Amino acid sequence: MSVLPFLRIYVPLNALLAAPGLLAVAALTTPDMSGRTRLALAAVLAVIWGAYLLQLAQTLLKRRAEDVRDRPPAIIIDVLAVLVPLAAYLLVGAPDWSLYCAVWLLKPLRDSTFFPLLGRILANEARNLIGVTTVFGVVLFGVALVAYVIERGVQPEKFGSIPLAMWWAVVTLSTTGYGDAIPQSFAGRVLAGAVMMSGIGIFGLWAGILATGFYQEVRREDFVRNWQLIAGVPLFQKLGPAALVEIVRALRPRTVPAGAVICRKGETGDRMFFVVEGRVSVATPNPVELGPGAFFGEMALVSGEPRSATVSATTVVSLLSLHSADFQMLCSSSPEIAEIIRKTALERRGAPPMA
Amino acid sequence: MSVLPFLRIYVPLNALLAAPGLLAVAALTTPDMSGRTRLALAAVLAVIWGAYLLQLAQTLLKRRAEDVRDRPPAIIIDVLAVLVPLAAYLLVGAPDWSLYCAVWLLKPLRDSTFFPLLGRILANEARNLIGVTTVFGVVLFGVALVAYVIERGVQPEKFGSIPLAMWWAVVTLSTTGYGDAIPQSFAGRVLAGAVMMSGIGIFGLWAGILATGFYQEVRREDFVRNWQLIAGVPLFQKLGPAALVEIVRALRPRTVPAGAVICRKGETGDRMFFVVEGRVSVATPNPVELGPGAFFGEMALVSGEPRSATVSATTVVSLLSLHSADFQMLCSSSPEIAEIIRKTALERRGAPPMA
Amino acid sequence: MSVLPFLRIYVPLNALLAAPGLLAVAALTTPDMSGRTRLALAAVLAVIWGAYLLQLAQTLLKRRAEDVRDRPPAIIIDVLAVLVPLAAYLLVGAPDWSLYCAVWLLKPLRDSTFFPLLGRILANEARNLIGVTTVFGVVLFGVALVAYVIERGVQPEKFGSIPLAMWWAVVTLSTTGYGDAIPQSFAGRVLAGAVMMSGIGIFGLWAGILATGFYQEVRREDFVRNWQLIAGVPLFQKLGPAALVEIVRALRPRTVPAGAVICRKGETGDRMFFVVEGRVSVATPNPVELGPGAFFGEMALVSGEPRSATVSATTVVSLLSLHSADFQMLCSSSPEIAEIIRKTALERRGAPPMA
Amino acid sequence: MSVLPFLRIYVPLNALLAAPGLLAVAALTTPDMSGRTRLALAAVLAVIWGAYLLQLAQTLLKRRAEDVRDRPPAIIIDVLAVLVPLAAYLLVGAPDWSLYCAVWLLKPLRDSTFFPLLGRILANEARNLIGVTTVFGVVLFGVALVAYVIERGVQPEKFGSIPLAMWWAVVTLSTTGYGDAIPQSFAGRVLAGAVMMSGIGIFGLWAGILATGFYQEVRREDFVRNWQLIAGVPLFQKLGPAALVEIVRALRPRTVPAGAVICRKGETGDRMFFVVEGRVSVATPNPVELGPGAFFGEMALVSGEPRSATVSATTVVSLLSLHSADFQMLCSSSPEIAEIIRKTALERRGAPPMA
Repeated sequence: MSVLPFLRIYVPLNALLAAPGLLAVAALTTPDMSGRTRLALAAVLAVIWGAYLLQLAQTLLKRRAEDVRDRPPAIIIDVLAVLVPLAAYLLVGAPDWSLYCAVWLLKPLRDSTFFPLLGRILANEARNLIGVTTVFGVVLFGVALVAYVIERGVQPEKFGSIPLAMWWAVVTLSTTGYGDAIPQSFAGRVLAGAVMMSGIGIFGLWAGILATGFYQEVRREDFVRNWQLIAGVPLFQKLGPAALVEIVRALRPRTVPAGAVICRKGETGDRMFFVVEGRVSVATPNPVELGPGAFFGEMALVSGEPRSATVSATTVVSLLSLHSADFQMLCSSSPEIAEIIRKTALERRGAPPMA
Repeated sequence: MSVLPFLRIYVPLNALLAAPGLLAVAALTTPDMSGRTRLALAAVLAVIWGAYLLQLAQTLLKRRAEDVRDRPPAIIIDVLAVLVPLAAYLLVGAPDWSLYCAVWLLKPLRDSTFFPLLGRILANEARNLIGVTTVFGVVLFGVALVAYVIERGVQPEKFGSIPLAMWWAVVTLSTTGYGDAIPQSFAGRVLAGAVMMSGIGIFGLWAGILATGFYQEVRREDFVRNWQLIAGVPLFQKLGPAALVEIVRALRPRTVPAGAVICRKGETGDRMFFVVEGRVSVATPNPVELGPGAFFGEMALVSGEPRSATVSATTVVSLLSLHSADFQMLCSSSPEIAEIIRKTALERRGAPPMA
Repeated sequence: MSVLPFLRIYVPLNALLAAPGLLAVAALTTPDMSGRTRLALAAVLAVIWGAYLLQLAQTLLKRRAEDVRDRPPAIIIDVLAVLVPLAAYLLVGAPDWSLYCAVWLLKPLRDSTFFPLLGRILANEARNLIGVTTVFGVVLFGVALVAYVIERGVQPEKFGSIPLAMWWAVVTLSTTGYGDAIPQSFAGRVLAGAVMMSGIGIFGLWAGILATGFYQEVRREDFVRNWQLIAGVPLFQKLGPAALVEIVRALRPRTVPAGAVICRKGETGDRMFFVVEGRVSVATPNPVELGPGAFFGEMALVSGEPRSATVSATTVVSLLSLHSADFQMLCSSSPEIAEIIRKTALERRGAPPMA
Repeated sequence: MSVLPFLRIYVPLNALLAAPGLLAVAALTTPDMSGRTRLALAAVLAVIWGAYLLQLAQTLLKRRAEDVRDRPPAIIIDVLAVLVPLAAYLLVGAPDWSLYCAVWLLKPLRDSTFFPLLGRILANEARNLIGVTTVFGVVLFGVALVAYVIERGVQPEKFGSIPLAMWWAVVTLSTTGYGDAIPQSFAGRVLAGAVMMSGIGIFGLWAGILATGFYQEVRREDFVRNWQLIAGVPLFQKLGPAALVEIVRALRPRTVPAGAVICRKGETGDRMFFVVEGRVSVATPNPVELGPGAFFGEMALVSGEPRSATVSATTVVSLLSLHSADFQMLCSSSPEIAEIIRKTALERRGAPPMA
């Protein structure tokens, strides 16, 4: 099965449209190109511009109709995507007008949920990030100063001023290492070795801050989303508040495009699924359809046997999956629900077999 | 709204002042520069020096008045910031005296809370950091020795001694890769490949130690700060000790400059706020002001609807925010507080709407 | 003791067999090589091809016999490993046919449990990985555009088009730093510095996502495996559901080849072992053999003394180890089991001493 | 105060002794050096060799006396450190005999607790590390093959065989980037970009595995050590098993050399200390000495005020520190102990003031 339907869930169509546009912009800057190719590329830009014009119109109409006030960036991006290339074409002219189509780089920000997430992480960790960046700056300047003092006599053309030495320092501290400026004296090389090790340390701090900030924010975001989704699964309403918080933490949301297989007969099953929205079909001798609130895949967890049937999505389906590890935990903290799930598994086993 | 007031919360003014000074120091070392520019840059240094002289005076006066004994580094940094450039001007003279203004690099350490944090992390992880550094050193020397033996015949000018081979080893182990010394023999290149992979491993250990050390220390520091802040929110006094520890772990402190918007009408709300210090104003038809101990933003968590009013800071405000995920947890472990917050939300909804 | 038996547990034989084959493929491409060496290498390829042909036959027979339907990739890989080199030999001919033996790179995927794990991690984190990759792409294009505008006048041969500038950008953003294209203008170098720092940040996000995704998936996988393994240890059946979940989280599975020493007399012992499958022998004056369901090494945890006997594997042994820290936890939450373990330790101490 | 006594706790003297020896070995390989310097360096090696001979003698005597059987590597390292240089001097002769002193690189492994820790982490994570290394190998070979096919026509001297292309691939995949081999074709550069991104991903996996493996192993090791140390603090014997496990997790061991200041009057105190071994002196008007089992620094946690006295180590002291966050937790789970600590704080406040 093609990966495209899955991709479309994560990357909206209008963002994907920007990709050929930007490739055309890039291609147009290559020097030796025939006039015909040039024209074809300009046509690509024109078509995409047209599509974005339509999108702008649609956004404006919708906006008027629904009086949506909470997504100002979307409309700003839509306006810029149309206006900037137009203005550049009229005012800047050939050959540089096409560069201004790079404003379409903003399109992925328009509907993405990842960029706001990234923004929140940066805001949460602002203090620590500013701190590490300050350390980076202090080390950078200090190192450049020392390198300048050590090497200015040896290689005046490479280390003859602090700005030159800073260029070397940033290239080294980030472990990029172009190799255009290299200390020659013994002291300079010892310094360089220390700089590289500091670079690894600063790297580590940065990665650590971003990684833990990312993890925490994603966990919180998942919690809020799951909290809203479990409203669609009546079974969970029987849980007490503490068990509910636990289960909401453990669930993992998943959106599956229509037609995709969710679990396949014969596989070992390590999770069960709850349907939040949409319908799935269970490929038993006489196929069964399950809708919102239903669950499936529990038999593999209860009995430990492989999946007994293939389940696939009839429509776009929003699921919550519960891993075997968390299912055991759920059973231990809420025997009542465990009982319901076990009973269903047994009934289904007696009845036509199911995943 | 400008980002400057936010920046000022994290980076003190006197540290920001060092930036233009250091830029001037750097600029003064560039060779071809007119005498006029040189004078202007020297003037910049003089002005900043003057400002730091004033700061020193202020620190000394305050010190005498308040008999503060617990921040010796601040006064040392203030004295050095004034004395070192002066001494250099008198003793070293042109053109190198300006280099000594680099002592202002210490200014960001003066009021920063990040540098002491970093110090504590390094102290906590000393054993592990020394361990990994020892591994780094042992690998470095061992690799240099082998590379020297392998390549000394092939390229005596690059690998003709262990110190030369160590230069290559440190450049490679840190994945910097200047490209000035590259093994040519087959054995040398296999060794180089292994060195690069070890480099990634040592990198990983270092990053892992710093990242987990950082995370733990920040969590502990946040706990202590929150523990002090919740004294300003009477509501929390009703919690039992276990729930209190939980909530203190979940709260996140935030300082907002006067005039900044804290939450905006129509946004989806994923957290509520408790005011610790300062006052906020709620932009309802007849605006309401809330002071220390009050909370707001709870309606979005209780009802799941978007924010019903914009709230902005009247003064500099110290807030504690509670994320939706942790709010649910609070509700499950302390029904009494959940009840108070829910009631307030309902009352406010009946009354003029609020965030 | 040789490391080979341990290696074989993690890397299946047929994957190891691919290694000499691929080395031969690589060697065959080196230009100056005698005809005799060439023939010898081709013979190596032929032998391995023969071995894979046998493996294919075996897989096909087994498949028919057992009607296994849940591992289609294995058979596909086996077929490709035989057909692709054969087809290349017949259709492509010398000298390039040997390159097609690179299809054997797929062999390690065949039986590995690590590749499916990696696949699940990538699937779980798809949203975040696509997000960071989008950020990477946006930054890459934006930076290349700016570098092109800044440097196209200075170095047209290096930055004369956006594709050329993108080459520089990707080399710099990944902190690889070949040094073939380096900005010369001041603005270009400031940009380069910012790019390197962004590179570290993107690096950090990526590493953070993969690291946490990895950690979570491994923990869940371990849980499921342990859950199945503890069925072989009757002692654990006495635990209540909550304690059982705890203990399953704490246990660590380990497979030991026949003949290997599990714990050595005189060592300090920080964990005890439960035998799931196979037999171990305890080197006391009159040696004891323990089989599935037995445990050993508990005395070191109860008394804090060094191991009192060496224990080694008689057959391939599947063990679950419990660390001292988790043993204390087990004792605190399930006094009954603690009592059993303590009693056994005392009895054994009275009787001939044991680990 | 000097950092040396602290360093000595983590790095044993005989390992520090190896450093000058190895520096001398390195220096001896530099070509233009006077005979006198050469002799002096050889003398350094001879002195260190003598010291290691003494250490060997001591180890052998101790071994006979105490019949220690559990540390065979120590004696092997001691023997090698003496025998290898001697054999090299007799058999290899000038100038290469000094290279064999590099066997002293093993000395840091002799008493280090970090190397065994590293070994355990690598053993625990063997499966995952082998997995990622396999991925690395597969990607490396695959990429080298493709690069060879793409670039062999363009730059036969750089990419003319798979081994040559693998050299480029490993330099690029590890983001080292020497810049000696750079793809020139468009396809080759696109491949290179993909390789760099894969390199970051593999980096991330590696770092993630090592980081989490490290964190877990250190936590377990700390638990075991703390579990042994709390035997020295009678106060903790009153805790129930669950609270004891919690507190053992929270405590942090620390060794302080004689004379060092543990906490300083006027500082803000965020942790309290329990004395396990050795004695500390409290600098109150009439100084108090505290020995094993005592605690101090609790007043700052109970009252939130700055430290009221400076406490320093009289002998080498082994401490357990408890952070404010964990102290609050302890108070909430064990009111009895909280009461004892609070009472002591109040008594001490009435009596001569203390930290």
